[in-house]
Amino acid sequence: MTASSTDRPRQDPAPYARPGGFPVVGVVGGGQLARMMQPAATALGLRLRVLAEGPDVSAAQVITPAPIGAADDLEALVAFARECDAVTFDHEHVPGEGLRAMAALTSVQPGADALVHAQDKVVMRRALTELGVPCPAWAQVADRDAVEAFAASAGWPVVLKTPRGGYDGKGVLVLSGPEDEKWATAQAWLADWADRGGLLAEEHVPFTRELAALVARSPSGQAAAWPVVETVQRDGVCHEVTAPAPGLDPALAAELTDVALRIAGGLGVTGVLAVEVFEVERDTPDGPVRDVLVNELAMRPHNSGHWSIDGSVTSQFENHLRAVLDLPLGSTEPRAPWTVMVNVLGPKAIEERHEDLYRSYLHVMAHDPGVKVHLYGKEQRPGRKLGHVTVYGDDLDTVRARARHAAAFIAGEIDE
Amino acid sequence: MTASSTDRPRQDPAPYARPGGFPVVGVVGGGQLARMMQPAATALGLRLRVLAEGPDVSAAQVITPAPIGAADDLEALVAFARECDAVTFDHEHVPGEGLRAMAALTSVQPGADALVHAQDKVVMRRALTELGVPCPAWAQVADRDAVEAFAASAGWPVVLKTPRGGYDGKGVLVLSGPEDEKWATAQAWLADWADRGGLLAEEHVPFTRELAALVARSPSGQAAAWPVVETVQRDGVCHEVTAPAPGLDPALAAELTDVALRIAGGLGVTGVLAVEVFEVERDTPDGPVRDVLVNELAMRPHNSGHWSIDGSVTSQFENHLRAVLDLPLGSTEPRAPWTVMVNVLGPKAIEERHEDLYRSYLHVMAHDPGVKVHLYGKEQRPGRKLGHVTVYGDDLDTVRARARHAAAFIAGEIDE
Ligand SMILES: Nc1ncnc2c1ncn2[C@@H]1O[C@H](COP(=O)(O)OP(=O)(O)OP(=O)(O)O)[C@@H](O)[C@H]1O
Ligand SMILES: Nc1ncnc2c1ncn2[C@@H]1O[C@H](COP(=O)(O)OP(=O)(O)OP(=O)(O)O)[C@@H](O)[C@H]1O
Repeated sequence: MTASSTDRPRQDPAPYARPGGFPVVGVVGGGQLARMMQPAATALGLRLRVLAEGPDVSAAQVITPAPIGAADDLEALVAFARECDAVTFDHEHVPGEGLRAMAALTSVQPGADALVHAQDKVVMRRALTELGVPCPAWAQVADRDAVEAFAASAGWPVVLKTPRGGYDGKGVLVLSGPEDEKWATAQAWLADWADRGGLLAEEHVPFTRELAALVARSPSGQAAAWPVVETVQRDGVCHEVTAPAPGLDPALAAELTDVALRIAGGLGVTGVLAVEVFEVERDTPDGPVRDVLVNELAMRPHNSGHWSIDGSVTSQFENHLRAVLDLPLGSTEPRAPWTVMVNVLGPKAIEERHEDLYRSYLHVMAHDPGVKVHLYGKEQRPGRKLGHVTVYGDDLDTVRARARHAAAFIAGEIDE
Repeated sequence: MTASSTDRPRQDPAPYARPGGFPVVGVVGGGQLARMMQPAATALGLRLRVLAEGPDVSAAQVITPAPIGAADDLEALVAFARECDAVTFDHEHVPGEGLRAMAALTSVQPGADALVHAQDKVVMRRALTELGVPCPAWAQVADRDAVEAFAASAGWPVVLKTPRGGYDGKGVLVLSGPEDEKWATAQAWLADWADRGGLLAEEHVPFTRELAALVARSPSGQAAAWPVVETVQRDGVCHEVTAPAPGLDPALAAELTDVALRIAGGLGVTGVLAVEVFEVERDTPDGPVRDVLVNELAMRPHNSGHWSIDGSVTSQFENHLRAVLDLPLGSTEPRAPWTVMVNVLGPKAIEERHEDLYRSYLHVMAHDPGVKVHLYGKEQRPGRKLGHVTVYGDDLDTVRARARHAAAFIAGEIDE
């Protein structure tokens, strides 16, 4: 494990000049992740504030004060940092310059040197390869020739990714071969990224399923890991998460947790780190074995960890805040044999939209008094993450069916 | 069960003129009970606001907007009610006039006719007696002769209570007999209450322990009950709550739950109702039997239900909000065999005060990663409720010891 610049012996937190010594934690970005930090902050008596994109974004509805400022507005970041004992993030889109300017004024967690690995997929692949973490075959490609050369060794299809700015599957292109009509888009992306080193090319992994390992790590190096989960995406967006991942080989789960902790330590991550991975099956002389390849990193609470609010002793949001403040981390133990989280996504067709979303509660809550509903205060738009529901219990099939029903009903996909 | 004026068939909630139809719930009073409604409101996408006693009271720190106004300021109440789809309470100190003025403008839960039973102990005793609910022997007493006459039948000691305005044991006086030196205070109280019908006199119940039954009831009459808990007071203030009450006879638990539901229905309570009771042992020809006598009612989330935040599928705060909005109630099932809540009370001696309360987290969280800490953002004052901790698990002794240790450490009562 590479020692990171943030590894230092635990120290007492600074005697914060606030009543009772309770620190002010600032969150850059006012999405649902910032919003869901608020209950944890309230319980611990922490004072939260958010640098919001607008006056009524998800987190600004429930966190005050919520000054308005863009994540790339240096002046707004600096003014915000001055008011906070620690700054953390709702997303990874704060430029390095802004991160460093804030770090000169307050504690910024995770720091710029760690966060760059969640901002730039080429930087991430390079660092993971150096750490010896299993990844899909990859190359940085600046033109079509480089893509074809990569395909010659890794085989078609090839996955092309913009190094920065992608989310929820945007910025990802799968090329089936030299004749693929998506080459037009690929060429445009290549041109766009030519003077920034090019795109990331990856082998197309024939995965059996997607998993995620979620860990939290504090500046002084304490770390905690939640059980590895299975994630299911729909149109490139996280849709369903099952904790723990059903039927996962315990040895592989332990290996994956170890990989995640190694990444967290190796890159100096502070706060929550989500490691999205592909589970793959390899044929060996002894028969097929399952293995994992790391796809993506997120350095903040992550959709794959929302189950932990209702499903674990300490939620990812609470442990993120504890890590950001270098407080000892809480237990990541699950509270039930199975917890299933299903996202409520904005319906594709306008007719499916609930005129009165709130009214869906009448049915959902009467139908299932055990379902935990979380909505984010967002306007309905097609495919948008409006909220999630969580159900836990002893029987996976029942738990999953209940969670799916509640989410589908709220999302307007079914009407009974 | 007496039918109440709020019993009516369930109706769809009014199509709230808010984005997504999500209602605004107003809470009169900015203490920790209002504060702890906020995480539940955030999850459900409800918009919360609070009528606060001052700009930095407990709930105003985490709920916005928080207009400032006293609970007996008619103008402030009316202005507040105009902005809310439903109004509820952090305490029972809103005068009937204010309740009725708000009810003319919006949904007020619980209503004045129910709430009066939590405001006036004589009204409460009279109503409970009419409902056939077992209570301590009682009488309304206007002068010393009446007290002595009551003692002649009920025996000494006699407990005297001011009908209104008491809390945390204030307004309660135990007279051991005609010679008790507390008669001076008793006479002053009697004079004070002479033209308002006098004081409440009660037999002094030699209880074996105190229990509490917590239920939620919605305007359309749906009700849900949490397991009966054991409560331990310290200097008249709730200190420790164990859920469920250890060793409680299941038949007595069922009877007590039934009593609480009968009270909720009979008095037309909406939202959470806490019924504080004495467990007593009576000698019978067949040996001693245990019984319950109702002491007190609270019509709002109550200290005896704080365990439910971490210990139950649906917390008292979530079900209170659901009831106030006439939404179907959530499951009140406990999530662990035992849950113990211990209050963090402000230390009596100034030397015991934590200069930096926040710093206590370093020890408490490192010592026990499973403890759930809840602080209320209040300044430290002797005996004041600053917060609580909750621990749950399979073994009661361990769970209790862990909760007590954490609370005592945060409160500055122990230093390791
Ligand atoms: N190398 C690959 N082989 C096969 N499928 C892939 C590969 N890379 C990505 N995918 C698929 O595309 C999805 C999105 O890819 P990726 O996570 O890199 O993009 P993203 O826009 O950063 O998404 P998110 O923000 O949801 O993590 C993955 O969840 C996976 O289903
Ligand atoms: N009749 C009684 N017999 C014996 N003890 C009593 C009696 N009434 C009250 N007490 C004791 O005094 C405590 C406080 O009484 P009570 O609950 O009526 O007052 P309060 O000020 O309304 O308290 P709180 O607000 O905490 O409920 C009780 O918890 C109990 O320990």
